[in-house]
Amino acid sequence: MEVKKYRKYNNKKNIKVENSNALKVIPLGGLGEVGRNMCLLEYKDSILIIDMGFRMPEEDMPGIDYIIPDISYLLENKRYKNVVGVVITHGHYDHIGAIPYIWNRIGNPPIYAAPLSRGIILKRQDEFKDQKKLDINEVKDGSKIKLGVFEVEFFRQNHSIPDNMGLVIKTPVGNVVHTSDFKFDNFPVNEEPTNFKKLERIGKEGVQLLMCDSTGAEELGHSLSEKDIFENMDKIFASAKGRIIMATFSSLINRIQQAVTLSEKHGRKMGFIGHSMKSNVEITKKLGYLKSQKGTLLKKVADVNNLPDNQVTILCTGAQGEENAGLMKVTTGEHPSISIKPGDTIVFSSSVIPGNERTVQMLKDDFIRQKANVFHYKMMDIHAGGHAQREELKEMIKTMKPKFFMPVHGQYSMLFANSKLAQDECGLKEENVIIADNGQVINITPDKALITKKAVPAEYVMVDGLGIGDVGEVVIRDRQMLSKDGIFVIIAVVNRKTGKVQESPDIISRGFVYLKESKELLYQARKRVIATIEKTTTSGQVANWTYVKDNVRNNLGDFLFQKTQRRPMVLPVIIEVG
Amino acid sequence: MEVKKYRKYNNKKNIKVENSNALKVIPLGGLGEVGRNMCLLEYKDSILIIDMGFRMPEEDMPGIDYIIPDISYLLENKRYKNVVGVVITHGHYDHIGAIPYIWNRIGNPPIYAAPLSRGIILKRQDEFKDQKKLDINEVKDGSKIKLGVFEVEFFRQNHSIPDNMGLVIKTPVGNVVHTSDFKFDNFPVNEEPTNFKKLERIGKEGVQLLMCDSTGAEELGHSLSEKDIFENMDKIFASAKGRIIMATFSSLINRIQQAVTLSEKHGRKMGFIGHSMKSNVEITKKLGYLKSQKGTLLKKVADVNNLPDNQVTILCTGAQGEENAGLMKVTTGEHPSISIKPGDTIVFSSSVIPGNERTVQMLKDDFIRQKANVFHYKMMDIHAGGHAQREELKEMIKTMKPKFFMPVHGQYSMLFANSKLAQDECGLKEENVIIADNGQVINITPDKALITKKAVPAEYVMVDGLGIGDVGEVVIRDRQMLSKDGIFVIIAVVNRKTGKVQESPDIISRGFVYLKESKELLYQARKRVIATIEKTTTSGQVANWTYVKDNVRNNLGDFLFQKTQRRPMVLPVIIEVG
Repeated sequence: MEVKKYRKYNNKKNIKVENSNALKVIPLGGLGEVGRNMCLLEYKDSILIIDMGFRMPEEDMPGIDYIIPDISYLLENKRYKNVVGVVITHGHYDHIGAIPYIWNRIGNPPIYAAPLSRGIILKRQDEFKDQKKLDINEVKDGSKIKLGVFEVEFFRQNHSIPDNMGLVIKTPVGNVVHTSDFKFDNFPVNEEPTNFKKLERIGKEGVQLLMCDSTGAEELGHSLSEKDIFENMDKIFASAKGRIIMATFSSLINRIQQAVTLSEKHGRKMGFIGHSMKSNVEITKKLGYLKSQKGTLLKKVADVNNLPDNQVTILCTGAQGEENAGLMKVTTGEHPSISIKPGDTIVFSSSVIPGNERTVQMLKDDFIRQKANVFHYKMMDIHAGGHAQREELKEMIKTMKPKFFMPVHGQYSMLFANSKLAQDECGLKEENVIIADNGQVINITPDKALITKKAVPAEYVMVDGLGIGDVGEVVIRDRQMLSKDGIFVIIAVVNRKTGKVQESPDIISRGFVYLKESKELLYQARKRVIATIEKTTTSGQVANWTYVKDNVRNNLGDFLFQKTQRRPMVLPVIIEVG
Repeated sequence: MEVKKYRKYNNKKNIKVENSNALKVIPLGGLGEVGRNMCLLEYKDSILIIDMGFRMPEEDMPGIDYIIPDISYLLENKRYKNVVGVVITHGHYDHIGAIPYIWNRIGNPPIYAAPLSRGIILKRQDEFKDQKKLDINEVKDGSKIKLGVFEVEFFRQNHSIPDNMGLVIKTPVGNVVHTSDFKFDNFPVNEEPTNFKKLERIGKEGVQLLMCDSTGAEELGHSLSEKDIFENMDKIFASAKGRIIMATFSSLINRIQQAVTLSEKHGRKMGFIGHSMKSNVEITKKLGYLKSQKGTLLKKVADVNNLPDNQVTILCTGAQGEENAGLMKVTTGEHPSISIKPGDTIVFSSSVIPGNERTVQMLKDDFIRQKANVFHYKMMDIHAGGHAQREELKEMIKTMKPKFFMPVHGQYSMLFANSKLAQDECGLKEENVIIADNGQVINITPDKALITKKAVPAEYVMVDGLGIGDVGEVVIRDRQMLSKDGIFVIIAVVNRKTGKVQESPDIISRGFVYLKESKELLYQARKRVIATIEKTTTSGQVANWTYVKDNVRNNLGDFLFQKTQRRPMVLPVIIEVG
């Protein structure tokens, strides 16, 4: 039984980072991975934090809720006292999701976020009632704030959520521009088109370092405009004769707006399924980001059952086939008020996150079996990613004309593709392009950008229930083993005086074999265990229980493997009595 | 903690199937899923079996090796005595993989297979030495064999492996044509192009039922020819300056031939990594299916280390990122003789099986980090599937002009797409198109094709080590639970007379928390358990141990959840002494 290796590139425990006149850029997450974005800019005694996100666990981390950045560097010697502020680019969880797990451990520094991001952060914080009230200051497009030696200017960038902010950070070594996640969109929904003039102005002011989103760097061409999505969705709405059930990420606020606008155009009212969907609709409506006519948004999704099918849109979570999300409940008939009817139109307006292809296929199959019409992004352009593709990235780099270029946000192959783009198509020299790993310390001076040999800890910190970082490799490896062949506990009561095993040993096994049908195997196992124990204990020596247990474990493990070709975790318990 | 539901559509235990003058088509696997292909044709006292494949487990079935077809129907009343033969379409495991688990339980019926399929089946059987020697008869393109009331003619079909056979089965109700997995290829590698004349002849003889591969039914257009793949691979070979490491499925024999031909053209010798790759190269070479010049194929892969890099091709398994396969070992440095060098060219000449996207991305990232050049099928056409796409399917249906049409091989959405194609583009009437589920019994008479209300068992039968079908839902559910939050066993020794718990209860926990760092939690847990037990046992009543254990389980479970928000499986053991 093999246990998959964690990919770690920064195990160095050496936290000391040279103090110098360089600006230090220290990514704690988001490089070589999708999500968990967090980056420090440190200059002498000032540390600025950009974003504080989480990511979802890998498939080989069962039971884990999230992975958050490692903040050992900030905790060491209370270095966090130097934090001058946390600037938030936008309200997606891969940029804000770790706030409840980190903020109260680093001295509650002030947070700066645009109104929608602030609303989403505060709403989430309701689940963490015992924490100190968050200190969030509102910023908007054009805001400039002074934080220690840094001056941060926020500028609007298009993405899939409103209030997404790029950053121009004035530092003692020159301007650092952080693109945030972004795309260029001349016809966006629910917000202004990209302000190329402002981008040009920023570029003209001189950019020492461009930290640039890489998520779309392997995709050719230009990302789809939300206008194209709108037109295709319009066709689906126009031809649907029954209800429309649309599944998307609840974080795609602009897509939700499209669904509202289209529903109104086609005389449909809307119900919502899924906690995060309802929550985001509530926030965005309250803050004025979601525009709807009176009566369009129904209070309860059950209200759609009082309307003719062709006047109904249902917006729901679970487009990835998540077990407990709305769409799964609807298809299995577990949702209290909504189940599939023949003639329903199901629209998957989202991409499939790698790893979820199987469950999404199952969902599709189930809908088709129930005689619904299914539309998904492979059949028609009904989803656009929120990330700049190669042509947009080129335009961004050429507009900013940075001295140094550092791809951020994405798998290593994406960072690499972005770096090649900067070199091969935008004329940057290889030595001015930095592909870094989480935990590395990049020194930026007016003349040079260097990855130093020092590195700070940037391990996976796993959140499981209330535990932050308490589940480590040992626990995960045990879970992986348990899941493969189960566990086999054998409890023998041994008489201290005679060395004999009293009665028949108890066996507890789960996930190994179906016990009721394995009586002969269990009988043989007990016999072996008794023999193994008594061989040692009745020989007159003082029993070395560790030795006896090891014997039982190995002996029994071999026996079970020989009989079943499975290797359950074998745990012997010996209890002395008498 | 929710346990994902199995999707089952045939739970009926009613095995009785009406005897009649109808031909019964009984799919036992392969419908609504990819893999596990096996189908029965039954007419009165003759049963013909088509294929006997396995499939890989779903992600929610940890520890399971394969899923094989349910043969309860054949076992009941030794109905298998009516089996007149097993015809094999081709040598892929989704068509032959279940033979070692089924053949010796159904009376060892004669098997009919083409030479390469036979060779692969026999090679695999080496791993099952205690079984009776397989009875396999060779057939070839044009072979006609009489099996009970059936006469089977084999006809060559293009796919990704040589010796792939479609079937024309003459039955008392008319001809049944089974396409096998297929594609049309006018420029294949290593074999003849599609014989359209023969297909036309078969169509003209009249086709009562066409059972047609559906795997590609959602893909537009025509599948790529192997010639196109060859030309693109040629470009990669021509430009590679270092070694070429090519990963593909070992079952894609024709792709392996391409690699050999290209290596010879570009002056490279070849090493092989991976058990199944070496095994398939050996079989196909021995049987004359793999053509190579003397000296091209090296005996040991380590021999490549004696050659200049630009004279080396390494062919290896593990293109899906499988844990123990060749490619993973090469990238992690665990392979004894091959590791990555800067300048290596890595070619992923395979598609990514849904569910494996994450691990393949990890592999890609690791190669790029090690400064290799990576090519994969999304960047360039260096992989073609072996399955007919929509244009080919249309041509097949129009050539066969079947009275009845039954899509086989594929997820439900694929079967559905194939059925719509037959209706909307080939003019079949809806009532003549049969979308069936595994276990359903389809009655074919000269006039009608009907899915009957009877169904035979078609459950998932899971193979885990030596166990076939002994791991059921209970064990799987336990494995899922164990993997999420682990296990917590508490062992209390209770004095029978006093009702007191002796000493401190033992705790064994795995996959829950890191015990060394959870002393306080364990202390509290012990205290609670003692109190819970003694509340009952010292009250003077005779203790009801089941009741006590339930109390401990619930009480302790709630306590642990409250403290950690995790729900380990809690197993209390109470031992009475004294």
